[in-house]
Amino acid sequence: MSTETKNERELKAVIGVHDAAPGTEVPDVAPLAFGGNRRSAAEEARTIVANATHGTLGSLSEDGTPWASLVTFGVMDDGSPVFCLSTLAEHARNLEGDRRASLMVSDPFHAGEILAGGRVTLAGAVKRSDEHPDEESARAAHLEAVPSAAMYADFNDFSFWILEVDRVRWVGGYGRMDSASAEDYREAEADPVQPQVPDAISHLNADHPDALLLMAKAFTRYEDATAAKCTMADRYGLDLQLDTPAGEKAARVSFTDRVDKPGGLRAATVDLARRSRQKLGA
Amino acid sequence: MSTETKNERELKAVIGVHDAAPGTEVPDVAPLAFGGNRRSAAEEARTIVANATHGTLGSLSEDGTPWASLVTFGVMDDGSPVFCLSTLAEHARNLEGDRRASLMVSDPFHAGEILAGGRVTLAGAVKRSDEHPDEESARAAHLEAVPSAAMYADFNDFSFWILEVDRVRWVGGYGRMDSASAEDYREAEADPVQPQVPDAISHLNADHPDALLLMAKAFTRYEDATAAKCTMADRYGLDLQLDTPAGEKAARVSFTDRVDKPGGLRAATVDLARRSRQKLGA
Repeated sequence: MSTETKNERELKAVIGVHDAAPGTEVPDVAPLAFGGNRRSAAEEARTIVANATHGTLGSLSEDGTPWASLVTFGVMDDGSPVFCLSTLAEHARNLEGDRRASLMVSDPFHAGEILAGGRVTLAGAVKRSDEHPDEESARAAHLEAVPSAAMYADFNDFSFWILEVDRVRWVGGYGRMDSASAEDYREAEADPVQPQVPDAISHLNADHPDALLLMAKAFTRYEDATAAKCTMADRYGLDLQLDTPAGEKAARVSFTDRVDKPGGLRAATVDLARRSRQKLGA
Repeated sequence: MSTETKNERELKAVIGVHDAAPGTEVPDVAPLAFGGNRRSAAEEARTIVANATHGTLGSLSEDGTPWASLVTFGVMDDGSPVFCLSTLAEHARNLEGDRRASLMVSDPFHAGEILAGGRVTLAGAVKRSDEHPDEESARAAHLEAVPSAAMYADFNDFSFWILEVDRVRWVGGYGRMDSASAEDYREAEADPVQPQVPDAISHLNADHPDALLLMAKAFTRYEDATAAKCTMADRYGLDLQLDTPAGEKAARVSFTDRVDKPGGLRAATVDLARRSRQKLGA
């Protein structure tokens, strides 16, 4: 699955320093390596792209300069982004001249320091919708994500453009990064719980720190943890940050089953807390 | 100053349709043409860039594909963005291979529909800081904008990169767009009042609709306006949206003098209201 190079692993080690707050011990477990099921790079990429409706297009100017410009997009079932551009706009003229393109999308749920947030670059070649076998789906995908495009999509100078992805590069924040194959990307599913994650994390940390600590004691190697905070959640489990006698540690706890419904995060977390109490006899 | 083409003027006319809310009359005055002093495209670009600390870099992959990726940046006195990149990261390797690059930056103060917001693309060629005559200023500019870069800037694999801008393309929202020459961009000044604008607009609309209406009656051709709302503000004046017997109209009112201090927007607006009352004998 992972196609990271030795250099990238080194970079993770170097940049991992940032993961610790000033004055805390650096976690001795790399963020991507603390165990349990988690989303693949392909799933991370699909999740970011499924929840965003704008990004930055990289296209080629007539003189070969890479041209970065704002675009809105929708997403087809196979993860291909679809743009709606006027031929009068520079980026559309660029695509007419050279079909190579990429799209950078930032995680729309991330708040705070930008480099700590997720983002993905999808690269490949575009097709104008009249060159694409499924013009109607492309159109529908764009209009679903960007309803206001209905006001101009039918103007003569506007076309839909589909980016057929052949390279995927995901960065999850400091020290979290990986590539995905085009095939893995096409077949991966966006995490349905993602829209609930920010509220779920706030709720867990505000109202259930005791349950999080029980999860850590029951299902991580830090049985001596004294406090736990949820730092990330997904359909497979929770990332925790723990206070332990040996300093601050990062850990992962997994749900019994993958969550398959948008609203299923709460039930999975309640189940994990229940199993923690059961295992600890608490 | 303007380098827009006939096509772009046509696009403005077409896209101008969006400026009106559903059910309202389309303003008969194009947003860029409703008179009074306003910021040039170069000033708009410098203002966006001065207030943002991240954007999307366009670089060239080894195979020539344009590669869009997230970057943080600072800005030198001449408007050149400065990045701090690891040679282990793909975009830095791209810049090593081909110095052509661009940077897309969105207006960090814009909220709401993304295509209605400002953004700018700066294109040119990068220099690694050891190739730049003012390495120290480049470093200082980046660290001022991105203080957390101090944690990794001195690692061996990180370098500062300066984008020497030779093309500037600003889009201010639907139907507002223009290019600026590299020289105009270098010499332009960021609008010092920009950080105050969102609060100023909220305050004016919430607490002073009567003063806005007086401004419209005194200083626009809509003496018969019945309501006024501020839609934009800058160091030169205010953009107003007016209810008139002939429908919804856009108009511009200018301050007596350009505001030169970050906190000067309030005094200039109070002065404009005072002159409106004076002129109308109200």
